[in-house]
Amino acid sequence: MSAAASFRVEKDLLGTLEVPAEAYYGIQTLRALNNFRLSGVPLAHYPKLVVALAMVKQAAADANRELGHLPTEKHAAISEACARIIRGDFHEQFVVDMIQGGAGTSTNMNANEVIANIALEAMGHAKGEYKHLHPNNDVNMAQSTNDAYPTAIRLGLLLGHDTLLASLDSLIQSFAAKGEEFSHVLKMGRTQLQDAVPMTLGQEFRAFATTLGEDLARLRSLAPELLTEVNLGGTAIGTGINADPGYQHLAVQRLALISGQPLVPAADLIEATSDMGAFVLFSGMLKRTAVKLSKICNDLRLLSSGPRTGINEINLPARQPGSSIMPGKVNPVIPEAVNQVAFEIIGNDLALTMAAEGGQLQLNVMEPLIAYKIFDSIRLLQRAMDMLREHCINGITANEAHCRALMENSIGLITALNPYIGYENSTRIAKEALVSGRGVLELVREERLLDDITLAEILRPENMIAPHQLKPLTPPVKEAVEQQR
Amino acid sequence: MSAAASFRVEKDLLGTLEVPAEAYYGIQTLRALNNFRLSGVPLAHYPKLVVALAMVKQAAADANRELGHLPTEKHAAISEACARIIRGDFHEQFVVDMIQGGAGTSTNMNANEVIANIALEAMGHAKGEYKHLHPNNDVNMAQSTNDAYPTAIRLGLLLGHDTLLASLDSLIQSFAAKGEEFSHVLKMGRTQLQDAVPMTLGQEFRAFATTLGEDLARLRSLAPELLTEVNLGGTAIGTGINADPGYQHLAVQRLALISGQPLVPAADLIEATSDMGAFVLFSGMLKRTAVKLSKICNDLRLLSSGPRTGINEINLPARQPGSSIMPGKVNPVIPEAVNQVAFEIIGNDLALTMAAEGGQLQLNVMEPLIAYKIFDSIRLLQRAMDMLREHCINGITANEAHCRALMENSIGLITALNPYIGYENSTRIAKEALVSGRGVLELVREERLLDDITLAEILRPENMIAPHQLKPLTPPVKEAVEQQR
Amino acid sequence: MSAAASFRVEKDLLGTLEVPAEAYYGIQTLRALNNFRLSGVPLAHYPKLVVALAMVKQAAADANRELGHLPTEKHAAISEACARIIRGDFHEQFVVDMIQGGAGTSTNMNANEVIANIALEAMGHAKGEYKHLHPNNDVNMAQSTNDAYPTAIRLGLLLGHDTLLASLDSLIQSFAAKGEEFSHVLKMGRTQLQDAVPMTLGQEFRAFATTLGEDLARLRSLAPELLTEVNLGGTAIGTGINADPGYQHLAVQRLALISGQPLVPAADLIEATSDMGAFVLFSGMLKRTAVKLSKICNDLRLLSSGPRTGINEINLPARQPGSSIMPGKVNPVIPEAVNQVAFEIIGNDLALTMAAEGGQLQLNVMEPLIAYKIFDSIRLLQRAMDMLREHCINGITANEAHCRALMENSIGLITALNPYIGYENSTRIAKEALVSGRGVLELVREERLLDDITLAEILRPENMIAPHQLKPLTPPVKEAVEQQR
Amino acid sequence: MSAAASFRVEKDLLGTLEVPAEAYYGIQTLRALNNFRLSGVPLAHYPKLVVALAMVKQAAADANRELGHLPTEKHAAISEACARIIRGDFHEQFVVDMIQGGAGTSTNMNANEVIANIALEAMGHAKGEYKHLHPNNDVNMAQSTNDAYPTAIRLGLLLGHDTLLASLDSLIQSFAAKGEEFSHVLKMGRTQLQDAVPMTLGQEFRAFATTLGEDLARLRSLAPELLTEVNLGGTAIGTGINADPGYQHLAVQRLALISGQPLVPAADLIEATSDMGAFVLFSGMLKRTAVKLSKICNDLRLLSSGPRTGINEINLPARQPGSSIMPGKVNPVIPEAVNQVAFEIIGNDLALTMAAEGGQLQLNVMEPLIAYKIFDSIRLLQRAMDMLREHCINGITANEAHCRALMENSIGLITALNPYIGYENSTRIAKEALVSGRGVLELVREERLLDDITLAEILRPENMIAPHQLKPLTPPVKEAVEQQR
Repeated sequence: MSAAASFRVEKDLLGTLEVPAEAYYGIQTLRALNNFRLSGVPLAHYPKLVVALAMVKQAAADANRELGHLPTEKHAAISEACARIIRGDFHEQFVVDMIQGGAGTSTNMNANEVIANIALEAMGHAKGEYKHLHPNNDVNMAQSTNDAYPTAIRLGLLLGHDTLLASLDSLIQSFAAKGEEFSHVLKMGRTQLQDAVPMTLGQEFRAFATTLGEDLARLRSLAPELLTEVNLGGTAIGTGINADPGYQHLAVQRLALISGQPLVPAADLIEATSDMGAFVLFSGMLKRTAVKLSKICNDLRLLSSGPRTGINEINLPARQPGSSIMPGKVNPVIPEAVNQVAFEIIGNDLALTMAAEGGQLQLNVMEPLIAYKIFDSIRLLQRAMDMLREHCINGITANEAHCRALMENSIGLITALNPYIGYENSTRIAKEALVSGRGVLELVREERLLDDITLAEILRPENMIAPHQLKPLTPPVKEAVEQQR
Repeated sequence: MSAAASFRVEKDLLGTLEVPAEAYYGIQTLRALNNFRLSGVPLAHYPKLVVALAMVKQAAADANRELGHLPTEKHAAISEACARIIRGDFHEQFVVDMIQGGAGTSTNMNANEVIANIALEAMGHAKGEYKHLHPNNDVNMAQSTNDAYPTAIRLGLLLGHDTLLASLDSLIQSFAAKGEEFSHVLKMGRTQLQDAVPMTLGQEFRAFATTLGEDLARLRSLAPELLTEVNLGGTAIGTGINADPGYQHLAVQRLALISGQPLVPAADLIEATSDMGAFVLFSGMLKRTAVKLSKICNDLRLLSSGPRTGINEINLPARQPGSSIMPGKVNPVIPEAVNQVAFEIIGNDLALTMAAEGGQLQLNVMEPLIAYKIFDSIRLLQRAMDMLREHCINGITANEAHCRALMENSIGLITALNPYIGYENSTRIAKEALVSGRGVLELVREERLLDDITLAEILRPENMIAPHQLKPLTPPVKEAVEQQR
Repeated sequence: MSAAASFRVEKDLLGTLEVPAEAYYGIQTLRALNNFRLSGVPLAHYPKLVVALAMVKQAAADANRELGHLPTEKHAAISEACARIIRGDFHEQFVVDMIQGGAGTSTNMNANEVIANIALEAMGHAKGEYKHLHPNNDVNMAQSTNDAYPTAIRLGLLLGHDTLLASLDSLIQSFAAKGEEFSHVLKMGRTQLQDAVPMTLGQEFRAFATTLGEDLARLRSLAPELLTEVNLGGTAIGTGINADPGYQHLAVQRLALISGQPLVPAADLIEATSDMGAFVLFSGMLKRTAVKLSKICNDLRLLSSGPRTGINEINLPARQPGSSIMPGKVNPVIPEAVNQVAFEIIGNDLALTMAAEGGQLQLNVMEPLIAYKIFDSIRLLQRAMDMLREHCINGITANEAHCRALMENSIGLITALNPYIGYENSTRIAKEALVSGRGVLELVREERLLDDITLAEILRPENMIAPHQLKPLTPPVKEAVEQQR
Repeated sequence: MSAAASFRVEKDLLGTLEVPAEAYYGIQTLRALNNFRLSGVPLAHYPKLVVALAMVKQAAADANRELGHLPTEKHAAISEACARIIRGDFHEQFVVDMIQGGAGTSTNMNANEVIANIALEAMGHAKGEYKHLHPNNDVNMAQSTNDAYPTAIRLGLLLGHDTLLASLDSLIQSFAAKGEEFSHVLKMGRTQLQDAVPMTLGQEFRAFATTLGEDLARLRSLAPELLTEVNLGGTAIGTGINADPGYQHLAVQRLALISGQPLVPAADLIEATSDMGAFVLFSGMLKRTAVKLSKICNDLRLLSSGPRTGINEINLPARQPGSSIMPGKVNPVIPEAVNQVAFEIIGNDLALTMAAEGGQLQLNVMEPLIAYKIFDSIRLLQRAMDMLREHCINGITANEAHCRALMENSIGLITALNPYIGYENSTRIAKEALVSGRGVLELVREERLLDDITLAEILRPENMIAPHQLKPLTPPVKEAVEQQR
């Protein structure tokens, strides 16, 4: 007669609570939901973390079965539950806020409870009938939050790493392609925002590719160096109390197999339980990439400044109207957004650093913030790089004639003539150009310091944009120069 | 016959796009949605910002009508639309990512378009029929993003300020009540984590109330000092180009009336257009409060450490089971979460600082990040304070006997006897106590340095925990002490 | 006939040490010297801090004499010693590293010992003969490091505050004078580095004066709000243990008199002993000024970029040759240095913030770093502002003709014509100008949209750079415009 | 017969200045001295940087001679000058402030001028007679600040790296020795400041050694990875303009030989001229080590807290009296100082990060701040580690009996009995112990759940502090346990 109950009652050390009937999570997750209404960002926001948690539970279950502690039927049900989560089901059940007290216990229990209830249904029981399969005793068997959680964070980062690298690599290719496309565009280089010496726009874009390429290599090698050593098997504080001596080896081996990641057991489990150094350095590396991207975007905004009262060497693709009051204005919105993402990543690195410093004794209780900020930085970085490539870099065009005109009109050009007409002539002509507003080439020609053929030779791009041997001057020119000296 | 179209076509300078039929936002919002998939946090996440945007649009419309530029019918429709948004409708239409390029143009256009389409429907037109009422020409009349957006940010912060102050005030009351409750609990004070001199637990909690009380006063006065000066009327760069000379005064006056906030026009609109100083200092103040909360939570975790191998002077209410492997363990999860929120706020302050520094020339293009981070910090701070009060402070109990026992056993107690038995006696007894493991009072009694009545008098809480006049010693005791000297 | 001994032997709880005979500091200072070889920056580096320490000692001695605890002769000797230090003597005796453990005990003892030994010599005794006048018992009477040291820090900041304000004020005057000087220089404003609408260079420089003027006002009011409440009299942890009930009032009153600063006693001494909030906010304010200076210097470098391939609207005075390889290159070295100082101040603020957060229980043991970083930030800020004014701002000149040419050539000028020729005409002409590379005025004239007189009227600086009433068009022009619409 | 002149007159592009007669630096250094009075920290503060500058000059001179551009006599004189600087002479002549505008030009010119004047004297000329040997034309031949300066920074860091590693290694050895010494001291581990499970004090100290050991390995490998690629030969912007095609290879080869460091030429000189990524990551690594040291010092202060009202498991060696008012108080001053150094290093990392982000186009003009902060961090870190080892770690002693007593009295001990008496018995006894204040072992004995022999076996350190196989219970005990279940 009565409708189905809308909740079930669960019990833990602190008493009972009504858990929504449809929820796969249980009482401890519910307590955490009630306790931590902070960032509003649930675990499910980072799918790789959820998948990694399921893989850790699977690996532990495999080891426990092999050691004879977990019955076959329970193992089968847990395995099925983990497999479904790994496939992408039930992620919406990972509801706990990324910022949480308890050093990740709530995250670990969220995983334990969801897996238990999926497994219970698969075994023909109702959700919450933990006597048949228990979140702690069975799913969490031989684990502590203090080893399962940091292991899952590391694994989650590894699982997403290739995607990050792929985004970075695509961006590098995009810059490299522009470097190629603009290889013939001669322009002035600038140091300290002052006219310096000639270069090509291609060299400038290739340098963007180079500098990010160094980060790609570094990120590729850092991840395995920093993240593959896991502390699974250390249980509460790394002493492995109450754990079977064979457990650690088996569990990590299984986890490596399941995840396809080259995971290895930590050598000093006491140290590994509280050490956050890997995250500090990894985040420091993300910060470095963010700094580089921000510098590059600053440059793109400078180079595209104008169109009339700025540098205007390149055009960024128009992405949206720039102003309601100023007709025709289009703004560099994509690089601007990247700058802001970079600042956020740098802010994240600071929050993470303070969390790492705040750890005490046998455990770093601030690990949830560390996990949150590092996953957040990675996602922001990846999205920003994709946005930058698709919506900006690929569509950049060069104002080649303007680049050349700026260069030809620049006083800095005199540097290239230095070895031919001497430092004194150069300085004199530079001053004269600045005062009179005339061009240095015009003045050189006027004074007949160099004939047109020689001048053209000196100003050939390939001679100005790389080291080269000085050409001997033809006698009459040489004489004119000497007279001026 | 055919189903209703699922989209409408809109047009801007860059061409046409298909806008979902049910969307109240328009083409420029859609472009921003496509451009900026970054934080995943939409404008609607911060309702006060949405409300403030609507209020700015209302105030501008009022001023424009009064100056004769906006027809009555359009004004009525815009007013109705703004009123509905202010009431809380249509917030889900504010979809643009909080991190965006364009210095807030997308936010401003999101507001302009939503208001225009609500108004169009109210006027009997279909969404998108902008010839009847235009997002730019009518809703955005006499405004630029560069004045409307920063004005809305300031107003949004003011609108939420009382709630923030209320949460802080409640927390202060909670600490003060505990200060009262624990006023008789005598304990040892500690400096540098070393035993110092006696105090009461009430003094300790009252100091928490005092220190946060200073922040309450500071926050209360800073908000009007920093946030009420708005640059509405400056249009593009603060010169008020194309604006009616009477507009600024009218618009700000209306905005003050509508919002109930004491807004005033900025004196130097050029400066006000690019200046982010108010946000830098306001965020610096939030950082200060975060630092204080973090320090307090560090103390709560120290004082409740144990129960057997720590300080164990107070008990935090149990909020959730602490460990699956360690029976009976309960952790200080609430203060731990507050610490992490504090670190995030400090990280936010850094991101905001870099964004403020990155502004160039007549506008700070990083303003969206500044808005995002400051709204985020406020919300996190408020939630953390509510959580701390409800789930922790209100339920704290004292282990009074243990506090007293620690104090009575402490060598630091000797400091209170200093003026009576002299520095030499004190030092000698302190050393003897440390070596022998015995109590200083026991040793003092054994040596008959002070009789029990005098000792009891000295050790009365009111005498140890505040400055007081030395009581003259009774003759026999005085003699005994003198002999020892 | 042996030579004079090169050292004297002093003794403390930990044993004896040989103190150099000529040193006025004693054994505890020597221990600190041996312990802390870190920053290499001694206390003497910040004279205001040394003076403030001496003033605190003087005030305490006065109060102790008045309460009858310090004999007249000792008081006189201590007073003479303090007076000499305040006059500037003996600063080189303040040798302890600014970074030190012990929460400032070493700083406090350095002051106690130097004063004691100066006083001893004045009394006719040898240095080190502490039985006649003791660093702890007499100079430090009724004080703890925990109240004397933070009081001295606050006082030291107040003592230097006027100098900081004066430097800031001079810089503001310098910007304001340039604002006046350049008030007739018409130029293009830029938002997002893109051409926006006209303004004057004077407005731009006046805005620099305005924004720093706000900081001057804020700094002027913040210092008394934050720094005048001192915890002198709280002794060890704020309970005032062993202190005379009349001491706090007397000592603070004397200190206010001696220093000429409006010092008042803290209301909650427990709170005041550990609270670092004043320093966090004060540093946050210094950070705000640093951010503004950095933004201004970024602008100066942009506006002076070139000379040929940048914006080149202003010239910074040449301070030093810019390059050995590039003849005639001069760089904006002064603003560049200010940027770097700003970054250092922001870094200092972070270090200070972490130190404030790291305080525990009844005392913040990280206070020495807090003092160091805040004094360092102030000095850097002041020096950077003086440098910026003297070596850069005062000598800036405008390239007036270039500014005007850029403006006249700018497409953004079309915005000023908007109300006269309509948005459609404006947009069409803007596009045509961009594609053809021609000027918008030229196109407007060619199309006879506006006659030269009207055009000149519209383009009068006073009409473009502030709100103004539209002038009615003369009939023939009006007609021409209408036809185009 | 006038006395010798006290100055000589030198000349550059901007005019003449009077250089002190005894100064080896020249006019450009003097200009920089006058321009930049900021940090007060001169180049000479970092001897490795000075030595590296001299090595770069030597290498360039060698290459120039070999290419036939530098005459033998000049080469010999320059070589002699460089050798003397490398030996440690003339460092006091490196007077420019570490914070400077101009991207290091002043540093480079300081080196050029000092070398030139030493060389001139060696050649029999007076200082300042640059016609015989010129700071720019000869000493700086084929170099730009933009390649010579960053090369010197990298080399300077490499030259000091072994010393840093040695300090870190010594500290690690110190922790490892204590780990050995305390390997038999059984104690309670703590997570979240709550009693967890047993471990040894040796394990705790060994973990400190392990975690720092990871940083030693990382720092050892990072330095060559990050710092050996130099941009010498790129001249102004990396195009190598005016440089001989053979120069780069020769110069870097020579520099590697002279310095004994495995330096290699950068592959993309355009990129290498402006890229600061190596410094960002290296500083990020220093930050990581600082974070670890700070965490360790937090632990040391916690573990030594008390002596009566704290944890008191270890004793730090007394370094200085802790209080004038509290007899016998000794504070953990050394770890406190390390904490503060760590915060400063983290602040330095932020300043450096902002400087790296602020670079524009072909050069990072903020490089002087980057160099300053990274050299400062390294020196602080090294000094802090030496101080920590010598003055603290080496002298730490354990309160073994107290450690054991805390453990035996801890409720957390029940975890070790879990597998023997079951989770239900464990929970029941834990609660009873907490309420009654009695010990869990006492209760277990009272209930005869385990006989004394079994209990002793379970509680053997080697069984509690590492994974182990459960021992089968003897029949009567088993029966008693079963009855209770």
